[in-house]
Amino acid sequence: MDFSSKLLENAVYEMSQLPGIGKRTALRLVLHLLKQPKNRTEQLSNALEKVRNQIIYCENCHNISDTPVCDICANPKRDESLVCVVEDIRDVMAIENTGQFKGLYHVLGGKISPMEGIGPQDLNIASLVGKVKHGEIKELIFALSSTMEGDTTNFYIFRQLEGLELRTSTIARGIAVGDELEYADEVTLGRSILNRIPFEGSLKSDY
Amino acid sequence: MDFSSKLLENAVYEMSQLPGIGKRTALRLVLHLLKQPKNRTEQLSNALEKVRNQIIYCENCHNISDTPVCDICANPKRDESLVCVVEDIRDVMAIENTGQFKGLYHVLGGKISPMEGIGPQDLNIASLVGKVKHGEIKELIFALSSTMEGDTTNFYIFRQLEGLELRTSTIARGIAVGDELEYADEVTLGRSILNRIPFEGSLKSDY
Repeated sequence: MDFSSKLLENAVYEMSQLPGIGKRTALRLVLHLLKQPKNRTEQLSNALEKVRNQIIYCENCHNISDTPVCDICANPKRDESLVCVVEDIRDVMAIENTGQFKGLYHVLGGKISPMEGIGPQDLNIASLVGKVKHGEIKELIFALSSTMEGDTTNFYIFRQLEGLELRTSTIARGIAVGDELEYADEVTLGRSILNRIPFEGSLKSDY
Repeated sequence: MDFSSKLLENAVYEMSQLPGIGKRTALRLVLHLLKQPKNRTEQLSNALEKVRNQIIYCENCHNISDTPVCDICANPKRDESLVCVVEDIRDVMAIENTGQFKGLYHVLGGKISPMEGIGPQDLNIASLVGKVKHGEIKELIFALSSTMEGDTTNFYIFRQLEGLELRTSTIARGIAVGDELEYADEVTLGRSILNRIPFEGSLKSDY
């Protein structure tokens, strides 16, 4: 693309560095900002700089937080012996939305991915193992996505915890509530039959 | 969405004000920035603020420019008696890419759209009429998109120019080069038959 302005070219370039934003989309976004009042752009750039420079991660669960210990970890009503291991804040938000989980979280900050150069030392794994060794945790629920990276990460953590007194589980995989069996993929349907649950259990709606 | 951090919530909100960016995409983009070095965010926000605060529009054609008169208008090799009327800089870039146009542009900055509250006074129409009245322009090519807004804008400008000495034309609508007739929509195919051109003309490749 040939731009008539270096300023514009630079803004489009920076915007197009974001994931999933191509050059055309970036140009559309920048042109939109140019049509808006100046304070819109100022608010956007201030908000981005502020979140990047001032963000803190909870000392306990490593979730994004405004305070050294996040609201979930600081809540005395939550069961701190039950910990759910997730990849990032989006998973925490999704599980919190269900209202079904009363334990704490442990945010890894990613998954082990040799392709992207992310090893175990880049994730918050050591602190999780530390917490388990201190005997703070009775049950660990693994809620990573069931991809190769997710499984690798699960397995790595599982090995680190071998021999320690601990119950572990993973979230159930199966047919989504409301879905038709005939449209489900074979792997999911197969797992949902292998991991079938007692009938009375399926009627429980509360954790 | 319930955020564990006000800073994050604010950044996601500002990001999601951009067109086509929903809350989930905005969250993904902000989390991406959080994983990158701090200077990435700084560069992005600086580039956005700079383009918004320092951008100039060419005095003559109203295109985005770094100088009071843009490179195209300042180029003595371009034919200033031939002017192509376009909506915004993206159209200028698209036509420039073809290498087929040697005249100047006039960037309206949008289309007349009562739905969005954009009237003729919000666009660079008066200066275009002024240029025509001064006799600087011999031919005007309308290259707005063929939507209702585009047609309205064309028609409005056309009425303003009535009685003035001027040739006007619109870019040809027809089947795209390389496209199959059977997949073309009826309106386009119909127009391409009505506006058929002499056979020898179709072989010209230069303007």
